[in-house]
Amino acid sequence: METGNRDTGVRAPVDKDVDFANYFCTYAFLYHQKEMLSDRVRMDAYFNAVFKNPHHFRNKVVLDVGTGSGILAIWCAQAGARRVYAVEATKMSEHARELIKANNVDDIIEVIEGSMEDVALPEKVDVIISEWMGYFLLRESMFDSVICARDRWLKPDGVMYPSHARMWIGPIRSGLSEQKLIDLESAMSDWHYFVDETERQYGVNMSVLTKPFHEENEKYYLKTSLWSNLHPNQVIGAPAIIKEIDCLTATIDEIREVIAKFSLRINLDRTRLSGFAGWFDVHFRGSDQNPAATQVELNTAPSEDNPTHWGQQMFLLHPPIRVNDGDDVSISFSMSRSKQNHRLMDVEFTYELHQPSGKRHPPITSKFYIE
Amino acid sequence: METGNRDTGVRAPVDKDVDFANYFCTYAFLYHQKEMLSDRVRMDAYFNAVFKNPHHFRNKVVLDVGTGSGILAIWCAQAGARRVYAVEATKMSEHARELIKANNVDDIIEVIEGSMEDVALPEKVDVIISEWMGYFLLRESMFDSVICARDRWLKPDGVMYPSHARMWIGPIRSGLSEQKLIDLESAMSDWHYFVDETERQYGVNMSVLTKPFHEENEKYYLKTSLWSNLHPNQVIGAPAIIKEIDCLTATIDEIREVIAKFSLRINLDRTRLSGFAGWFDVHFRGSDQNPAATQVELNTAPSEDNPTHWGQQMFLLHPPIRVNDGDDVSISFSMSRSKQNHRLMDVEFTYELHQPSGKRHPPITSKFYIE
Repeated sequence: METGNRDTGVRAPVDKDVDFANYFCTYAFLYHQKEMLSDRVRMDAYFNAVFKNPHHFRNKVVLDVGTGSGILAIWCAQAGARRVYAVEATKMSEHARELIKANNVDDIIEVIEGSMEDVALPEKVDVIISEWMGYFLLRESMFDSVICARDRWLKPDGVMYPSHARMWIGPIRSGLSEQKLIDLESAMSDWHYFVDETERQYGVNMSVLTKPFHEENEKYYLKTSLWSNLHPNQVIGAPAIIKEIDCLTATIDEIREVIAKFSLRINLDRTRLSGFAGWFDVHFRGSDQNPAATQVELNTAPSEDNPTHWGQQMFLLHPPIRVNDGDDVSISFSMSRSKQNHRLMDVEFTYELHQPSGKRHPPITSKFYIE
Repeated sequence: METGNRDTGVRAPVDKDVDFANYFCTYAFLYHQKEMLSDRVRMDAYFNAVFKNPHHFRNKVVLDVGTGSGILAIWCAQAGARRVYAVEATKMSEHARELIKANNVDDIIEVIEGSMEDVALPEKVDVIISEWMGYFLLRESMFDSVICARDRWLKPDGVMYPSHARMWIGPIRSGLSEQKLIDLESAMSDWHYFVDETERQYGVNMSVLTKPFHEENEKYYLKTSLWSNLHPNQVIGAPAIIKEIDCLTATIDEIREVIAKFSLRINLDRTRLSGFAGWFDVHFRGSDQNPAATQVELNTAPSEDNPTHWGQQMFLLHPPIRVNDGDDVSISFSMSRSKQNHRLMDVEFTYELHQPSGKRHPPITSKFYIE
């Protein structure tokens, strides 16, 4: 036995220990913490959000959900918080404790190792800060823990950092659409050679597995969304907001499934629609009762100068579609949690091209997996 | 949040569901099955073992532990078995059923989905066949399931396929030893830049994490064994057998830990000892009572013409040691299961160079992880 490490989608049903093994443990590595701490867009947004809004932090009680290395908790303490509870599920909590001590804020910050759902705080909090966003915002489903924290521990007039989040989808062009088709063809041609050889050398006819092999590889090459940092000129039309979340009021029911109908206007002539890209932004605006002095945005849209470690998720069409300036693509979109692993997502696009001439193309449905 | 996929060693303690999520699920992919089924050395050995020893199979009852796609079970049926029980823990069992039907042996083979430890067979068996070998033989700890199957289901005069296994260690040279040191230095120089920037830009001093970051990266770059298919001329001395296993009698206690003292004679002049490589062979000899008509060997030693998907595990020394023809390296070796995950291994080498001049160097101990 022994196999390689092609990443897989098949997982056991939700189970706390399995979830820990699959999900949390990567966050126990400083290598990964460094990757996130080196994302300037992410760091600048949280840094500015905290230090440009000192009235939200001075003498306040703060909860940091998933503190990791502890950086957000340290900033809150430096901004004048009276008390900060920094909750972390992984052993990274030990490094957070060291870092907090070395930065002389260990009298302010209490690190609590445990999952947010199990933790008890001695008091309610004025602010919940958390960097919970996954690929295309909701992958990882970590916002569930933030909602749980908010419902249990936030004071009625408390504020959320960030306060709002939005999901975006834009039409894109990319050579990867053709490339992935070629990769699939090449995998299938290898397979056919393998079937012939296995029959010839070892007397076993494998051809009954050709269809499932094709399905497995089609899922891998064509139906799995891809991480990318797109160049803005790969976006060939105006993107649309498909979901807005008010972090102060959102419920798990509101985010468990995302359904949207919208239209994308192509604004480039004689190009091809290779697929769609999904990204998000979040805002730090405080609350209506207690607004931010300075609003801050964290944006993960395609950008030449300010890429993020989140990049964008690409959902590629095979084959791409020829489009022109002025064409409209009307889309029914849905995203729900994978049955195998609640932190992964199943996505469906039904799209229909409308040309200014009035010509319509029949709707096409494509399914994708965010893994 | 969101992190990359650098493979990790930190896992939850042994838990059946976690183990399934981490270990078994890769075997549910036809892609991986194809990889193993395309390993000619592996396939030829099992094929010859079965078809050159028809007296072990004709009218016999066979158990295939971890049948995967079902190929070994099919061969046993084709070789004349009366009944074959093919046990598989993953959903690959469904493909095995299809393949068995398409090859017209579904009247002989019964596929049973479940883990070997939980399965009940209606009768005892004459032969247990299994391809249970992991990297450096024992990674994956799948032989445990074969032992369990043997103790419960093999008739007193039954035979094991394979019947014997051996672990080998040889002295090697490789440029990767220097490369990994450079990679570590480069990771640390990135880290120092990161620490400076984080202090300058964000007012947090990260230097308290320098030591744990170094430890984490030292483990990753220098202390984790590497998969490789070495060229035979990279082996710079006679390899040694460090463990012999009789599959008919071995107990879990015998394989839980491997301890060996041995000496390696360097047979190349003016070269460097970059480290040690570990590999294995298995033999199909039947039993004393019921020997094979034709003995077959499956060998995963460094080979130009017959590489396997197992390759060799390299344990690299940093820095390498200058050695000459006639030098002896005496070694105390131990390998035990990782406390975090019983399918992974902790390895320790204590080595001492003896030159023909009588000059001795002080012993050095290096620890490694097989992940």
